[in-house]
Amino acid sequence: MKRMLILSSTLLLVCAGGAMAAEPENYIKYRQAMMKAIGGHTAAASQIVRGKVAPEGHLLMHALALAELSKDITHLFPEGSDFGETQAKEEIWAEWAKFEEAAENSKNAAADFAAAAAGKDSRQIADAFKAVGKSCKGCHKDFRQKDD
Amino acid sequence: MKRMLILSSTLLLVCAGGAMAAEPENYIKYRQAMMKAIGGHTAAASQIVRGKVAPEGHLLMHALALAELSKDITHLFPEGSDFGETQAKEEIWAEWAKFEEAAENSKNAAADFAAAAAGKDSRQIADAFKAVGKSCKGCHKDFRQKDD
Repeated sequence: MKRMLILSSTLLLVCAGGAMAAEPENYIKYRQAMMKAIGGHTAAASQIVRGKVAPEGHLLMHALALAELSKDITHLFPEGSDFGETQAKEEIWAEWAKFEEAAENSKNAAADFAAAAAGKDSRQIADAFKAVGKSCKGCHKDFRQKDD
Repeated sequence: MKRMLILSSTLLLVCAGGAMAAEPENYIKYRQAMMKAIGGHTAAASQIVRGKVAPEGHLLMHALALAELSKDITHLFPEGSDFGETQAKEEIWAEWAKFEEAAENSKNAAADFAAAAAGKDSRQIADAFKAVGKSCKGCHKDFRQKDD
């Protein structure tokens, strides 16, 4: 009986979560915050890769965070989240398969970077980081409006 | 012999890292990138805590990243990194013990938030997140110049 109650509460929570997530426009602010985190980790990793600073363990921390943040980018762009204060272009939804591919590139590049950062090969780390930057630009070029 | 060579290379790398890290002004850009990542994760977590979005597993991801990013904030402010494009106030170095205490508060608040986010108690999560925000403000108030 107790187990049933716990299960019911869990289901209610999941349903409540689902209902909240159903408001597409709520994702605009959320994905902007996600992109800010991605930008911060990328800028920090860049300083390390370029040899400007070398705080212990930080390169791997940023790389792992980037891998996590890039895992499911398309999920941040539900249909109907294309109005208001957003730089997301309509092409995202008009060319969804192409957008999915660009997001997949970022996911893979970030995962490769995390794998490289776990090692010590500075050439491999630099190449993997370059690929991350390229995948960001590859998606922004087609699917994000330029800043004013 | 091979092991000795590996050890020597590792030591060389560590020394090179140490030498690079010795340029205090290099930390200005780096800590700004770290703070940008902290800001992104905090804004994202805020959207989840306020029930705006509920992407699976994301609250814990942001909380764990914040705990990592907040682990050693004082290390980002070496002496001599108080000039140039920085909003860091001189009080950081003049009142180092007080700054250390404020940084320790942030570290503890972020760790508590990560522990709460690993559970399901929404009241505990909200309270722990509030404490994170309070610890950020507590440090910025005394040690960071206001935006123009």
